[in-house]
Amino acid sequence: MSIPAITPPQRLLMGPGPISADPRVLRAMSAGLVGQFDPAMTTWMTQTMELYREVLRTRNEATLLVDGTSRAGIEAALVSLLEPGDRVLVPIMGRFGHLLVEIAERCGAEVHTIGTDWGTVFTPEQIEEAVGRVRPRLVALVQGDTSTTMNQPLEGLGEICARHDALLYVDVTASLGGNTFAMDEWGVDAATAGLQKCLAGPSGSAPLSLSPRAREVVLSRRHVEAGIADGTPGRGTRIRSNYFDLAMILDYWGEARLNHHTEATSMLYAAHECARLLVEEGMDAAVARHHLHGRAMAAGAQGLGLRLFGDQEHRMNNVLAVHIPEGVDGDAARTALLEDYGIEIGTSFGPLHGKVWRIGTMGYNARKDAVLLTLAALEQVLRAGGVPVTGGGGVGAAQEVYADAAGAATEAAR
Amino acid sequence: MSIPAITPPQRLLMGPGPISADPRVLRAMSAGLVGQFDPAMTTWMTQTMELYREVLRTRNEATLLVDGTSRAGIEAALVSLLEPGDRVLVPIMGRFGHLLVEIAERCGAEVHTIGTDWGTVFTPEQIEEAVGRVRPRLVALVQGDTSTTMNQPLEGLGEICARHDALLYVDVTASLGGNTFAMDEWGVDAATAGLQKCLAGPSGSAPLSLSPRAREVVLSRRHVEAGIADGTPGRGTRIRSNYFDLAMILDYWGEARLNHHTEATSMLYAAHECARLLVEEGMDAAVARHHLHGRAMAAGAQGLGLRLFGDQEHRMNNVLAVHIPEGVDGDAARTALLEDYGIEIGTSFGPLHGKVWRIGTMGYNARKDAVLLTLAALEQVLRAGGVPVTGGGGVGAAQEVYADAAGAATEAAR
Repeated sequence: MSIPAITPPQRLLMGPGPISADPRVLRAMSAGLVGQFDPAMTTWMTQTMELYREVLRTRNEATLLVDGTSRAGIEAALVSLLEPGDRVLVPIMGRFGHLLVEIAERCGAEVHTIGTDWGTVFTPEQIEEAVGRVRPRLVALVQGDTSTTMNQPLEGLGEICARHDALLYVDVTASLGGNTFAMDEWGVDAATAGLQKCLAGPSGSAPLSLSPRAREVVLSRRHVEAGIADGTPGRGTRIRSNYFDLAMILDYWGEARLNHHTEATSMLYAAHECARLLVEEGMDAAVARHHLHGRAMAAGAQGLGLRLFGDQEHRMNNVLAVHIPEGVDGDAARTALLEDYGIEIGTSFGPLHGKVWRIGTMGYNARKDAVLLTLAALEQVLRAGGVPVTGGGGVGAAQEVYADAAGAATEAAR
Repeated sequence: MSIPAITPPQRLLMGPGPISADPRVLRAMSAGLVGQFDPAMTTWMTQTMELYREVLRTRNEATLLVDGTSRAGIEAALVSLLEPGDRVLVPIMGRFGHLLVEIAERCGAEVHTIGTDWGTVFTPEQIEEAVGRVRPRLVALVQGDTSTTMNQPLEGLGEICARHDALLYVDVTASLGGNTFAMDEWGVDAATAGLQKCLAGPSGSAPLSLSPRAREVVLSRRHVEAGIADGTPGRGTRIRSNYFDLAMILDYWGEARLNHHTEATSMLYAAHECARLLVEEGMDAAVARHHLHGRAMAAGAQGLGLRLFGDQEHRMNNVLAVHIPEGVDGDAARTALLEDYGIEIGTSFGPLHGKVWRIGTMGYNARKDAVLLTLAALEQVLRAGGVPVTGGGGVGAAQEVYADAAGAATEAAR
């Protein structure tokens, strides 16, 4: 067997994520390793906690990384907060709501759901009605669900949950960095993310934060491993997972520095750099950037005659879905885009499968050249597929958005 | 807040792991990303499966990566194989045996243990006696436990387990690549590893393999996620974790390519390169390299007057423990080694805490210059700590081992 080293083909990843990582993040991962309790390492862990507090807009002490992909973060939050038999309410607006149900069920929770059509979001009233009826210990929902491109408004939900004595968990994997998320202001008790969307990194590390209230719930179930026990007796119902036991992970990231897993050092380097770049840019500026390039892509898609899917008032800045034109083989067109132009856009799941494409403008690829290249190539692929398109219709419409934004900026600077 | 980019200090990591990664592995991680179902990506996934079959010496189809650190691999194997109430036997010879107990208990298993003094291993007879008495569904043990440096012989255990209708799980995290492991020949049903030891990579990806028998057990509990359900009804007791559900992870790595997590692409690049380098070297050659440098380090330590800990007949090739000399503050000496020479050696856990140092020669650092530099610096630190040492005693003894080995090689080549 002779297998060559990996030499990736050139790809511009304009799907719903993962997207092309920022070259600075990739370079960060090639730095040499240090030991897991080296003073340099613990300094970077502490910096990483500070950086993600800024990214999540929180003062939560309990802000750290879970070593796994974004769904590892979700499972760590849910398995550590939920005990078997706990009631959970999941408002489902897309595929990742189903994932929360699935994970909460495996934690042994009694899961209740409410639904809304794909492409729409919930009103606070709908959620409050369900909370009052179900009386859950935890409300779990997704802020931005790439399967539908919707961005669930979260203002007011923390207050509703607090009033009904429920914890509020939000999965911000797809939305964070590209859409406003204000953890403390909105009263969110637990939030988890990933690097592979607007954070411009590779999948494999899951930033997580717990409010003081959520941290208390987790610590009330603290059981130190026998192999390193410090004599403190365990308390509460043991968390069902060792790897995702946030009480132990907090001891590892906190002052105690009790050994748990061996931190995934290179992924920590990546996560540190992702957050550092966002904080350097400023969270508001990052959201504004995603808003601009998302608008340009949407205008460009419409300029190519494509119809947008879903409630545009509540669409995430960083991803849009367009109806696949009548008569076009969606997968064949995506393959042509990939093979001939090196550009990837996304297919879709569930009720939207085969009906829409999903196009992202996020992280490092929330850039003008990425938007214009994608529109230029898509125009060619649509034309080759027999769709009547106006030459330059996509790129032209996007350029107008950029020109207007530049004009407005000049105006504002006067 | 202004936090600079991570620029690691120079470190030679000669502890029990993580160790300094091979620069080729670090470079592999800085390659650009591709989409998770890009034909290039699925090709690399298939290659990664092939490579780890070679590394683990198995023909198991079900050979893949779990996205997390080595204990993520352990938990994925145990939670997918064990149902609540199942009886498990764990022979404990060090800290990581306790970890297996801890994880199996959280899976709801009924855990039975046998023990042996730290620094010794079990005989097959001891294990067979316990298997006959406990009649477990699964026997779980560690091949190489860095906490004691012991390497548990595994020959014959698969046969014992098969005879008693038990599955055999082995954690090879610390041993794989540096000590012989022959999964199929030894009848091992499930094995998991990590990259941060003899595989010369960073922590964060866990190679895992299941025998056909273990795969059947996992598939008998297959439940596809609601969000992507293919109509196949779920069967058996649902696996308690979504993230670690090997039935779903097999669907992701297999022909079905059903979406589960988003593969940690950069860590897959690392895992691919780690295995590729080992296979290129040859597994026997890699073990021989670890044997040589481990012997040189052991001779050098003795040349410095240090006493080795544990049964040397059953020590792993890649790590040794030495008694901290009377009157020396072990942690202060380690700090001096780190701060003045940039070299890290390990402290220890449990009954050995404060009594021994652990010194590794593994992966990229199973190298002559790494061994000699460590011995040269350790000599200085011991002398500064008031220990009477013969100048050049450590380096000289190691050089003799190298000279003998070179002589033997020349002899053999004649």
